[in-house]
Amino acid sequence: MHGVAEPIQRLIDALERLPGIGPKSASRLAFYILRMPNDQVQDLAEAIATLKEQIVYCNRCQNLSQTTPCAICSDPSRDQHLVCVVEDPLDVVAIERTGVYKGLYHVLHGAINPVEGIGPENLRVDALLERLEKEPIQEVLIATNPNMEGEATAMYLARLIHPKGIRVTRLARGLPVGGDLEYADEVTLSRALEGRRDI
Amino acid sequence: MHGVAEPIQRLIDALERLPGIGPKSASRLAFYILRMPNDQVQDLAEAIATLKEQIVYCNRCQNLSQTTPCAICSDPSRDQHLVCVVEDPLDVVAIERTGVYKGLYHVLHGAINPVEGIGPENLRVDALLERLEKEPIQEVLIATNPNMEGEATAMYLARLIHPKGIRVTRLARGLPVGGDLEYADEVTLSRALEGRRDI
Repeated sequence: MHGVAEPIQRLIDALERLPGIGPKSASRLAFYILRMPNDQVQDLAEAIATLKEQIVYCNRCQNLSQTTPCAICSDPSRDQHLVCVVEDPLDVVAIERTGVYKGLYHVLHGAINPVEGIGPENLRVDALLERLEKEPIQEVLIATNPNMEGEATAMYLARLIHPKGIRVTRLARGLPVGGDLEYADEVTLSRALEGRRDI
Repeated sequence: MHGVAEPIQRLIDALERLPGIGPKSASRLAFYILRMPNDQVQDLAEAIATLKEQIVYCNRCQNLSQTTPCAICSDPSRDQHLVCVVEDPLDVVAIERTGVYKGLYHVLHGAINPVEGIGPENLRVDALLERLEKEPIQEVLIATNPNMEGEATAMYLARLIHPKGIRVTRLARGLPVGGDLEYADEVTLSRALEGRRDI
């Protein structure tokens, strides 16, 4: 871009690599950051710079966390007999926001997607099966996204878990089909949790 | 937000303070940054952290720049008789992008806005008048935004400059009225530059 100083251009380029940020909003953000108070700018830079080194995978639920086991896995008040399987860490956030769910989680970090070459071996499925052997889990609530990949993943997991005599449930319909779990509003997601059904 | 590690939440909070980024896109960005290659993350953090210290105001055109005078003001091939007055640095970028304009710039850093208490004394108007005394400027092209504040600023400047016997022009209509100059496409902005008229 002509007429813009190199350090500003450098930031614009870096911002443009982020999802959902085009050239014009990258420019707006860069010039906004230039006008922000110094301490806020340094906060933002440091939050980005130190993020990855502070985050690990919880060795139990596989969620991203500052500690392993994570805060939820370490909380004795959570129902140790119920585990909710989700695709992504943001799905844990969405479900926690409802305040309805009191069990544990297991984060797969994706869903089965043959088109993109993602099979069960690329997900944290083995870690889940291991937990089912070791922990007193009585019900696995599969909360993968209500789209093709999420459904395929749910069916795959249900087939693996049923023979173990463990109850397998799925979030109730009520979620908009084809959508993304993390965009569901709290009420819809609460209903879906309450109305979960056996599969 | 429940269920999210503190360093992630800290970044989400910092991102949410930026314009046009809501809670959900802040979350998406944070988790995206978590998955980005280390060097890209450090690039982004450093671009933000070092931005402000590397940028100064050009003492001639008042644009944000790495040097003073800036690259445009230092370029002897630019027409030294023509100065284009804009509200913001992003407007310089938009005009440079057309490739049509070969004169100099003057950045006001805002427009007259009585509602927000912004008068000429809050803008870089004195610096402009000083340039008109010292430099061989024959034409001032006022390219403030085609909205109420931009028009008021243009009228105000025209009244100050006319008595000096310097030609004062305005970008041709062709810009969508009520809009923002920096969002104009190159063709519209090129037409507006070519068809500029006396006021």
